[in-house]
Amino acid sequence: MDYDRVARAFVPGHVTGLFSIHRTDDPATTGSRGAGLTLADGVTVRLTPSEETVVRLGGERTAIDAVDLVLDAMDRTAFVDVQTDLPLGAGFGISGAATLGTALAANAALECGRSENDLVRLAHVAEVEAGTGLGDVVAQARGGVPIRLEPGAPPGGTLDGIPAVADVEYLHLGDLSTPDILADRPDRITSAGTEALEALRQRPTLDRFMAASRSFAEEVGLLSDDLRSIVEAVEASGGAASVAMIGRTVFAPGKGLSDAGYDAERTEIHPGGASVLAD
Amino acid sequence: MDYDRVARAFVPGHVTGLFSIHRTDDPATTGSRGAGLTLADGVTVRLTPSEETVVRLGGERTAIDAVDLVLDAMDRTAFVDVQTDLPLGAGFGISGAATLGTALAANAALECGRSENDLVRLAHVAEVEAGTGLGDVVAQARGGVPIRLEPGAPPGGTLDGIPAVADVEYLHLGDLSTPDILADRPDRITSAGTEALEALRQRPTLDRFMAASRSFAEEVGLLSDDLRSIVEAVEASGGAASVAMIGRTVFAPGKGLSDAGYDAERTEIHPGGASVLAD
Repeated sequence: MDYDRVARAFVPGHVTGLFSIHRTDDPATTGSRGAGLTLADGVTVRLTPSEETVVRLGGERTAIDAVDLVLDAMDRTAFVDVQTDLPLGAGFGISGAATLGTALAANAALECGRSENDLVRLAHVAEVEAGTGLGDVVAQARGGVPIRLEPGAPPGGTLDGIPAVADVEYLHLGDLSTPDILADRPDRITSAGTEALEALRQRPTLDRFMAASRSFAEEVGLLSDDLRSIVEAVEASGGAASVAMIGRTVFAPGKGLSDAGYDAERTEIHPGGASVLAD
Repeated sequence: MDYDRVARAFVPGHVTGLFSIHRTDDPATTGSRGAGLTLADGVTVRLTPSEETVVRLGGERTAIDAVDLVLDAMDRTAFVDVQTDLPLGAGFGISGAATLGTALAANAALECGRSENDLVRLAHVAEVEAGTGLGDVVAQARGGVPIRLEPGAPPGGTLDGIPAVADVEYLHLGDLSTPDILADRPDRITSAGTEALEALRQRPTLDRFMAASRSFAEEVGLLSDDLRSIVEAVEASGGAASVAMIGRTVFAPGKGLSDAGYDAERTEIHPGGASVLAD
């Protein structure tokens, strides 16, 4: 084993705006349809070969189940250092990003010789098996504003995209528990998500995405009173806002949140997908 | 018509390293399989609505058939300003980039509300109909190091990619005519391209791509004496090089050309695909 090798990968954050759930017997074809924004605020993974797998997040030792699973699937062990400016548990797909970044960096550092589709599939399967994500990985691999036409990973998981660039603001309200809508309301999600995706596909623009996401959030019961008051304040200032799936986070294109007087984080749509980084 | 609207798009350059040709009755499913590098040196398109279509390249009025065709297909007319640092007719996919950039910028400036797959398909069809390209557009839309598994445009045209970043050097030898291998040797291309793609898919790495491209160029007769002497000089210096399809251009990862004493242009693999640019 060559301990000198190190590789890094960047994976954009991903805010899901609307989705429907599709489960099969195979984690590679299990996933979600839907749409979201990939963000320049994302996750950087730095990986070094190691006798046993150790994962750090922001310098602290931690466990990310899907990261362990993807390394197991690649038959590798490594020291994995995950860094992000995004808040955890707030709906930005940190787990998917850490997992896909680990797959890309392990492939580079350990010369596994796998293709990008292979690595995306491994990361997607690990996320589904860990129960931490259904569509972030394929969206993060693509970048931009992904529309997930079909669930699952390559060679399935067909994607399209909204051709848009924009600044994006977000505000995370902290870690009160969110309703477990995946468990409580699967049928409502499937019907609302299918309807929202259909509306978006008729006119795949950023305006339509925001409207479809907001309707979806309303329909499935994710707009708690505190989130709703922020979304409505942005709208009253002439902007558009919705909430991340799933986490207590409001997001808005442009300066929607700061125009409404909130002290929000600012990022932008990331035009490209996940990639290894130069040495 | 709103004459105030303007939009810009960036499309990476694309050097094809190996390919096979696949023609059908439908330009959307006609195309090529193969692999190439997308480059940070690319094409910027600035588009403004206009009563009639005018195309400029580097400030000079010109005609790019596929640009006219894609605007016709979108039922739009525009002033299209194309800028690039890449040499013309040298195998960098300038025509495909100008066409895809026009589609993206027209969609943004004229609020056509089309999806990215739609725009890629329109640009691919325009390129095929103009006879100026078979696979650049879908590769340029994706970015990175695209492997074109299946010919044609979305929903066909399945892609994979080599997960690699690298500096890339290139040297264009000027505009002597190149053998018309598409017309003269279609069978040789199909068999050599199929074999080269198969070898690459067994281990999709940058090293294997360079080797497969060099074998392909040899096999189909693109290594004229002057190109061969440069490729061999790079190899003698410990690097790897091949030639662009199709144009009198040698390319090499890293500092392959400058290490061999050539005064080459330097760019890098572009991690993302084509995208509209912020205002």
